[in-house]
Amino acid sequence: MSEPFTVRQIAEWVGGRAVGDAGVTLRGVASIGDAGPEDVTFAADAKRAAGLRESRAGAAIVAEPLDAAAMPLVQVDDVQAAVAEVLRRLAPPETLPPAGIDPTASVAEDADVAADAIVGPGVVVAPGATIGAGAVLMARAVVGARAVIGPESRLDAGAVVRHGCVIGTRVRIGSNSVIGSEGYGYYVADRAPRRVPHAGNVEIDDDVEIGACSCVDRAKFGSTRIGAGTKVDNLVQIAHNVQIGRGCLLTAQVGIAGSARLGDGVVAGGSSGVRDNIALGDGVRLAAFCAVAADVPDGQVVSGIPAIDARDHRRIVAAWNKLPELVKRVRQLETKLNARDFSEDG
Amino acid sequence: MSEPFTVRQIAEWVGGRAVGDAGVTLRGVASIGDAGPEDVTFAADAKRAAGLRESRAGAAIVAEPLDAAAMPLVQVDDVQAAVAEVLRRLAPPETLPPAGIDPTASVAEDADVAADAIVGPGVVVAPGATIGAGAVLMARAVVGARAVIGPESRLDAGAVVRHGCVIGTRVRIGSNSVIGSEGYGYYVADRAPRRVPHAGNVEIDDDVEIGACSCVDRAKFGSTRIGAGTKVDNLVQIAHNVQIGRGCLLTAQVGIAGSARLGDGVVAGGSSGVRDNIALGDGVRLAAFCAVAADVPDGQVVSGIPAIDARDHRRIVAAWNKLPELVKRVRQLETKLNARDFSEDG
Amino acid sequence: MSEPFTVRQIAEWVGGRAVGDAGVTLRGVASIGDAGPEDVTFAADAKRAAGLRESRAGAAIVAEPLDAAAMPLVQVDDVQAAVAEVLRRLAPPETLPPAGIDPTASVAEDADVAADAIVGPGVVVAPGATIGAGAVLMARAVVGARAVIGPESRLDAGAVVRHGCVIGTRVRIGSNSVIGSEGYGYYVADRAPRRVPHAGNVEIDDDVEIGACSCVDRAKFGSTRIGAGTKVDNLVQIAHNVQIGRGCLLTAQVGIAGSARLGDGVVAGGSSGVRDNIALGDGVRLAAFCAVAADVPDGQVVSGIPAIDARDHRRIVAAWNKLPELVKRVRQLETKLNARDFSEDG
Repeated sequence: MSEPFTVRQIAEWVGGRAVGDAGVTLRGVASIGDAGPEDVTFAADAKRAAGLRESRAGAAIVAEPLDAAAMPLVQVDDVQAAVAEVLRRLAPPETLPPAGIDPTASVAEDADVAADAIVGPGVVVAPGATIGAGAVLMARAVVGARAVIGPESRLDAGAVVRHGCVIGTRVRIGSNSVIGSEGYGYYVADRAPRRVPHAGNVEIDDDVEIGACSCVDRAKFGSTRIGAGTKVDNLVQIAHNVQIGRGCLLTAQVGIAGSARLGDGVVAGGSSGVRDNIALGDGVRLAAFCAVAADVPDGQVVSGIPAIDARDHRRIVAAWNKLPELVKRVRQLETKLNARDFSEDG
Repeated sequence: MSEPFTVRQIAEWVGGRAVGDAGVTLRGVASIGDAGPEDVTFAADAKRAAGLRESRAGAAIVAEPLDAAAMPLVQVDDVQAAVAEVLRRLAPPETLPPAGIDPTASVAEDADVAADAIVGPGVVVAPGATIGAGAVLMARAVVGARAVIGPESRLDAGAVVRHGCVIGTRVRIGSNSVIGSEGYGYYVADRAPRRVPHAGNVEIDDDVEIGACSCVDRAKFGSTRIGAGTKVDNLVQIAHNVQIGRGCLLTAQVGIAGSARLGDGVVAGGSSGVRDNIALGDGVRLAAFCAVAADVPDGQVVSGIPAIDARDHRRIVAAWNKLPELVKRVRQLETKLNARDFSEDG
Repeated sequence: MSEPFTVRQIAEWVGGRAVGDAGVTLRGVASIGDAGPEDVTFAADAKRAAGLRESRAGAAIVAEPLDAAAMPLVQVDDVQAAVAEVLRRLAPPETLPPAGIDPTASVAEDADVAADAIVGPGVVVAPGATIGAGAVLMARAVVGARAVIGPESRLDAGAVVRHGCVIGTRVRIGSNSVIGSEGYGYYVADRAPRRVPHAGNVEIDDDVEIGACSCVDRAKFGSTRIGAGTKVDNLVQIAHNVQIGRGCLLTAQVGIAGSARLGDGVVAGGSSGVRDNIALGDGVRLAAFCAVAADVPDGQVVSGIPAIDARDHRRIVAAWNKLPELVKRVRQLETKLNARDFSEDG
């Protein structure tokens, strides 16, 4: 798929040290188990490096020198960063539409679109919207009235940023995601649910990335906020008035309910959830499939439904797995004690 | 963002009684903790009203007179309804496309589009579809062949209503949601799954609201139905032939499997699920993250995976949290009894 | 909705044997409970057939002769296949756009579009893409640069297949689903998450069907793969580098994390999840709402969070339901033993 490259080139790309035959030619990147003679593989630590002996890979990127390895190596300080750099070189250049407004796009007369922005086929930009310098709106993206897309930000095909939302710089919003959907708020009058109007918006800070088919609801008042550098996966729900800190990682199918507040560097495992109005401190980690129903202090790791400290949870699950046996042991104790009662009574 | 307003104006808007300096000027709405001197806040009950003493808010909407409050008040019967009314006044007027068919829309010749309906940029209306009076189709919405969008209903940007589905009056369908997706039904022949054709449709009754990126599958035969006034959040799955009653609330990431039947006023917490062919009575409430695998009678509150009565579940979880301790206690009993056996045997 | 048909016609359509009055006229299909005099219903087994006595249905499709039935019957070998055939006859013919490129579509000059393919209104086909013979791109579908849509495959309204992805023959991708979204991969440098470029693509084999609002991420390197005949429901997440076998069934809201490998014929219940790098053997079945965190051998059925063997899980849940009672029994044992200690000490 991509041009062949040598071990020497890898070393140059990543600022590493080539060990062994630096002229070996490669064509791709693959995991230790899948790699063939034309792939470079990688081992981030000594444990994984042990697997290199049985790998068919043509070369490997490693953190420490491995004298016994049967293949050329590129030694680096940060294996993950080096692999990312190689992938950057190998990724086929994406074909973007040309800068300017595609003739099939529909752009309001009073929208402010930077001259070098890309407005792709079928894109809709509503009145009063602003599209920053170098921004990219892929096919059929929609930008609502008075919304702002910051410089170098990108909406993938079908993404929707609704009216009044403000997107920072270098933000990426995946295909068919929706920013600024109505918050889910109802009150009951005459025994029927009535909509609470949502007068607020969504503000997304610089370098945030959001995957595909995710939703961020607009605030009831003020803003739903996502802090700089936070990365959100696919099919994630972020409700009205949620406040998310910087550098958080929210993986697929996570749900954050209304007005919850996440500190910086929070990591939420797949399908985990946070109840409304809950506060998570900095560096909190949620195990996959956990449901947080109470505040969590800085740095705590939680697990379970409802979520508790992960170490406690591990102990409880271990005991839970032996529950039928425990029931049996209690029955034996009862039998024993009753028998004794009987014998003593007799 | 919005024009300033006074305490006196709030009282007029909501039909309440101003207490204190009614001339105080405000600019926004905020929660008790976040409000500043230019915000009106609100307290729905006495407990929350206690927090007003430490709030920096410029004014508050309350249900009962609070003599000690340091700020002007607006006293009302229903705080939530009053806040909703204030938000309605403050919400920036949404910029809708003009009535009529946008030149970039694609409308089939034989589609029946009301003269005052809004058909926005990039919208597609297929043959035989009907768009009612005052309906709004935002950018890039799609209406399939012979589908009906009732009067004053609205499809947000990118929403899809597929062929033959019938949408009532004042219904709202959020961005990138899909109504009438194929039901997930397969039978096995020659050891491979074969599609069961879905000859039915989806019928959505008046005043239903559906969030973003939610899916309602078409029926195998007959209709998948959502009753009047039901409100559905984002990323919700409603499978083929499901029957949902009136005034239900289904929050984000809920999943209702095939042919399940929900009564009126059912409330489903976030990420909860209902197995196929299950019946939930009127007023049933599902806790967040619960999985219902058996019928639930009217009014019951259930929790857990699998879901059971919520009070039973609470007791079980309390015991579950102490499971490692229970294991220890059983071990002590065993030790004690064995030691005694030994001493008695001796 | 559809033309009336007779019991005789049903028997012809499905290759079955009419029993009783074959001239009875029907108009629809319905379940035993819902069917009226103009519906044909069906009973796949003897247990369900017992319900026919109280059904108001006009006729029934059954597997075994039922002498006592009060209605005409059509007897067949495979009831599900017969019902599917009847539904195929009754399903209203879908109104597809005409073959060729709709004037509102945006198709790159160098895209290779088969002459008989349907490219509907508002569709976008990027440079270098290939659209096979008889393929159908419904309204507003997007095909990225160099992507391949195989013969007779179909993208429903709003579906997105991103650059470089390869879709086989007779594949169906539901509305607003996204194929080839960026994989969720980050490494930390200077204390901030950095994107790992995703140089790979997605390859979807023949006869795969994917529902609405589902996401399949592109691979970091190589391909994320879905094997022939696999059927995926709505709102499902399939992460980067996942490898899915043939004939699998993934129901709604399932999540498969990065590099997980599923064998052939795996069935995943609603909202179940699989951790990254996990391997599931052939024929593995996941209960709804289970979370798999370890490899599962061929044919095993698992349940729970974390998932364990389903029979073990059933026993544990049964004990778990009686946990408060168990705590009470342990307390009684303690009291009894303490009382005895006391009496013996005295």
